[in-house]
Amino acid sequence: MDTIKSIGIFCKQKPHISQEVLQELVDWLRQRNYQVLMPPDTAAIVQEPSSDGNDDIPGKSDLIIVLGGDGTLLSVARLTENHEVPILAVNLGSLGFLTEVALPELYSTLEKVLKGQSAVEDRMLLRSCLKRHGEVLRSDVSLNDVVINKRDARIVNLEVHVNDQYMTSYRADGLIIATPTGSTAYSLSAGGPIIHPSMNALLLCPICPFTLTNRPIVIPDRAVIQVNLTTQEKVQITLDGQLGYEMTSEETLEVQRGPKPVHLIQAPGKNYYQILRQKLHWGRPAEDRKQ
Amino acid sequence: MDTIKSIGIFCKQKPHISQEVLQELVDWLRQRNYQVLMPPDTAAIVQEPSSDGNDDIPGKSDLIIVLGGDGTLLSVARLTENHEVPILAVNLGSLGFLTEVALPELYSTLEKVLKGQSAVEDRMLLRSCLKRHGEVLRSDVSLNDVVINKRDARIVNLEVHVNDQYMTSYRADGLIIATPTGSTAYSLSAGGPIIHPSMNALLLCPICPFTLTNRPIVIPDRAVIQVNLTTQEKVQITLDGQLGYEMTSEETLEVQRGPKPVHLIQAPGKNYYQILRQKLHWGRPAEDRKQ
Amino acid sequence: MDTIKSIGIFCKQKPHISQEVLQELVDWLRQRNYQVLMPPDTAAIVQEPSSDGNDDIPGKSDLIIVLGGDGTLLSVARLTENHEVPILAVNLGSLGFLTEVALPELYSTLEKVLKGQSAVEDRMLLRSCLKRHGEVLRSDVSLNDVVINKRDARIVNLEVHVNDQYMTSYRADGLIIATPTGSTAYSLSAGGPIIHPSMNALLLCPICPFTLTNRPIVIPDRAVIQVNLTTQEKVQITLDGQLGYEMTSEETLEVQRGPKPVHLIQAPGKNYYQILRQKLHWGRPAEDRKQ
Amino acid sequence: MDTIKSIGIFCKQKPHISQEVLQELVDWLRQRNYQVLMPPDTAAIVQEPSSDGNDDIPGKSDLIIVLGGDGTLLSVARLTENHEVPILAVNLGSLGFLTEVALPELYSTLEKVLKGQSAVEDRMLLRSCLKRHGEVLRSDVSLNDVVINKRDARIVNLEVHVNDQYMTSYRADGLIIATPTGSTAYSLSAGGPIIHPSMNALLLCPICPFTLTNRPIVIPDRAVIQVNLTTQEKVQITLDGQLGYEMTSEETLEVQRGPKPVHLIQAPGKNYYQILRQKLHWGRPAEDRKQ
Repeated sequence: MDTIKSIGIFCKQKPHISQEVLQELVDWLRQRNYQVLMPPDTAAIVQEPSSDGNDDIPGKSDLIIVLGGDGTLLSVARLTENHEVPILAVNLGSLGFLTEVALPELYSTLEKVLKGQSAVEDRMLLRSCLKRHGEVLRSDVSLNDVVINKRDARIVNLEVHVNDQYMTSYRADGLIIATPTGSTAYSLSAGGPIIHPSMNALLLCPICPFTLTNRPIVIPDRAVIQVNLTTQEKVQITLDGQLGYEMTSEETLEVQRGPKPVHLIQAPGKNYYQILRQKLHWGRPAEDRKQ
Repeated sequence: MDTIKSIGIFCKQKPHISQEVLQELVDWLRQRNYQVLMPPDTAAIVQEPSSDGNDDIPGKSDLIIVLGGDGTLLSVARLTENHEVPILAVNLGSLGFLTEVALPELYSTLEKVLKGQSAVEDRMLLRSCLKRHGEVLRSDVSLNDVVINKRDARIVNLEVHVNDQYMTSYRADGLIIATPTGSTAYSLSAGGPIIHPSMNALLLCPICPFTLTNRPIVIPDRAVIQVNLTTQEKVQITLDGQLGYEMTSEETLEVQRGPKPVHLIQAPGKNYYQILRQKLHWGRPAEDRKQ
Repeated sequence: MDTIKSIGIFCKQKPHISQEVLQELVDWLRQRNYQVLMPPDTAAIVQEPSSDGNDDIPGKSDLIIVLGGDGTLLSVARLTENHEVPILAVNLGSLGFLTEVALPELYSTLEKVLKGQSAVEDRMLLRSCLKRHGEVLRSDVSLNDVVINKRDARIVNLEVHVNDQYMTSYRADGLIIATPTGSTAYSLSAGGPIIHPSMNALLLCPICPFTLTNRPIVIPDRAVIQVNLTTQEKVQITLDGQLGYEMTSEETLEVQRGPKPVHLIQAPGKNYYQILRQKLHWGRPAEDRKQ
Repeated sequence: MDTIKSIGIFCKQKPHISQEVLQELVDWLRQRNYQVLMPPDTAAIVQEPSSDGNDDIPGKSDLIIVLGGDGTLLSVARLTENHEVPILAVNLGSLGFLTEVALPELYSTLEKVLKGQSAVEDRMLLRSCLKRHGEVLRSDVSLNDVVINKRDARIVNLEVHVNDQYMTSYRADGLIIATPTGSTAYSLSAGGPIIHPSMNALLLCPICPFTLTNRPIVIPDRAVIQVNLTTQEKVQITLDGQLGYEMTSEETLEVQRGPKPVHLIQAPGKNYYQILRQKLHWGRPAEDRKQ
């Protein structure tokens, strides 16, 4: 983080909260002579015009501030793939796995960031390519996961290769390919383990697999995962629970680690296990189911 | 519940709580001309002598009041097997699955009970017999479960018959045989389902089974379950997590529904699903893991 | 099973198997002066015409023979709801949970059935009604399950009442409401328990619930279950994995035990636990994962 | 693998198998002028004397051959911690996760090994130290796992720190700390994920945790894990399911990656996913539970 001059802000519109918070932040930054960049959606919250598109801001900013929840951060993270810009994620509501900084800590944290006193944590991204006969039809990044889900069929039949080696076939509702960051999102509901976000790992977690021994599997992040459909059907591909498209049995989905990570600014005084305990309600004292 | 004259009280000794609560309750009852029976442990809390043993009280009482937690209730429930006496269970601390009545509701609930206006819910008990060559070595009741657990071995080998029909063999850490009441106790931690307490069901839940498809199984409560060890070893038998003894490969454990249920007085205005939601923290609004 | 005169046959078309098997069976029955009824699809396999529709046959038959797999049986079972006719289910391929009789045992079993020497097992059905403002839009039966599944949304928000009492809300991929028979079908893949088919039970098994403590729950079969959507969205309702329709947030799905069960003829010499062990590969000797 | 001169052999005594196989192997090696080293147990199988202890052989051998199952390999692996010697593991019975080479492939594989044509795979070990007031009471290695298990108590209360940072507290039957190699052993039965053996990872898998959201967690292998008991009790520590000792609340168990890995010779033409599929019965064609 060299000298910070331009700061991009992405804010989720939340009634009764966003406008006041955002206006105050924009004013605070401009008083200190930082240039503030906002995409049209965010600018509209404080009744400003904007000529910067979502995609342009990461390249023009030395710091990005996200105001919202984990969902807002996920969508911004995907925009920053080719940029080194760090992200400060502030939750407007309850604590997120990714949006560690709470609103009351915004300015104290921001001052540390602007003085270069904050720690940055890298989180790997996934790159997923849809291919037909070797040709790339589309290519996307995601921070949490890429999910293959059944559409109209009762069950889907998937075949998975890892580094061109046959791994296994799944008859299942679908398959989640997750980063360590995504291990606490959808994958956890499907029975997956928690993976520390600093790990170089990919997680394959089948959704309701027919074969009961088809357990979640953690593999090295240098793997290239290829998924094919073995019957004539369509499946739904979803990125971070937000973007989606269809895939047919003519096509192959290729998933691997993205070349560059996202740079998240850590909330001072918080650590991963603390957030885990809080989000998953571990060790609450009130629990006394009698065993 | 015919006319109530004698009331047995079992109280768990908890520093700073029990004495005051118990003294007040005893006074309240005596003022209303009820005979109060307490076992020595409970009587000692209010510095009274007692000539009634634990086992005698259920037969002499028209109502039993339990002050404590689910654990206290479990131990009292086992004493009442051969008696029709209803039990009013009041938790001295946090809400229990079984001790639904909170301390502030004690007297309002008690007044309803004494007027015969309260509802009683029957909960089935388990009877378990340890047999060697057909001879009964010991026989016990339990309200939650009977657990067969490994002792020194890495794994135990169990063979289960239901109504003299071979069911399956388990290689596992152990096996939980639970009532519907016990389905929310140890069994839940071992992966078992929740079973509504009004059901006529027995639950067999293996603990860490080697064969991954050995899933929990719910069977009718008219079943007689027989468990044998198929290798030379010792296992630990535990009743309601409170009483225990050893079993060897010479012996058979026979488990079935007890002939008579326990009669629990329901807290007015509470229902099973409400307690489930509260105890298992369902539907808390704060949960927003981003999927 | 009074005197059997008319026998309905439903056969799944399988290349290289069905025609020969079906022709032999039809000839065998006609030689013994039984009237054979086949729906058009089945009749076409042996190049015969048919004037009996699928729906008519159960009412005209004293016995129904199903040749196929569990899927074929499921579709026939739903037709027989209002009839007392017993079903003999013969698998053309591998052992099914429901199609217990293998092809080589067909005639020996059939002879016992025709002499009235076979045992019949009742299996409960589910009745599900889609209602809007109290009006019944459609009503269906199923033998395994009724499944509510997300369509385009990432997650669905369901609210469940049991006998007009609020049970819980689910944020999940969906919800399976299963009979004991259906407990070994889709529900098992979603983490549900096995329930003995003789039990009077309904199983609610959430699919990938967001709240990790939302475990499968078994309730008495006298319950009326109502499911509503709490957000503006559409879900997919699927019966036995075979029939489907859409439901919106304007509508309520009401599920309860069907008034009459299906009558399955049991394969002589087989029992439920034996089929379980075989289908779930329990106790195979080759397993020696080192613990 | 430089020039191989001395070959250590560890053989499990199995009636009807071991002697013949071992004698043939010893003769084959001596005919080719290799020095054969056997510990007393193994030497006794072929009626030979031995002056080499179990512990001496790894240091004197250029290659170790294990004849037995995964259990035999586990006990040999722990002996080789401080040595670079590669291990060729041959199963005398059914395929193991670790003993990939089958008896019929012994000599063809051995010839490749002796010519230096075989691939070696490193598998990390765990080092576990029992400490009291900073003093090391004992120190062990294990290849699969270190398990903390309850003894007489109904449940144990454990507190876990990672790199001196508080992670969480468990109320559970116990805790498994496993290597990737151990992820397919005991941990799999306790609900843990499969972890590719090449990963630099440690797995913490609680056994029947009281708090249902206490899910298995995968952390980097550079972590130092400290486990303490928070109540007055004794627990059982078990290494690879084979070695054990007691731990009290006075003591701390410290677990981390061992400094050196074990060197396993890979069976030519086999790969990890193939062994997984075979051992866990994935993708068997006979499975057709009707969904």
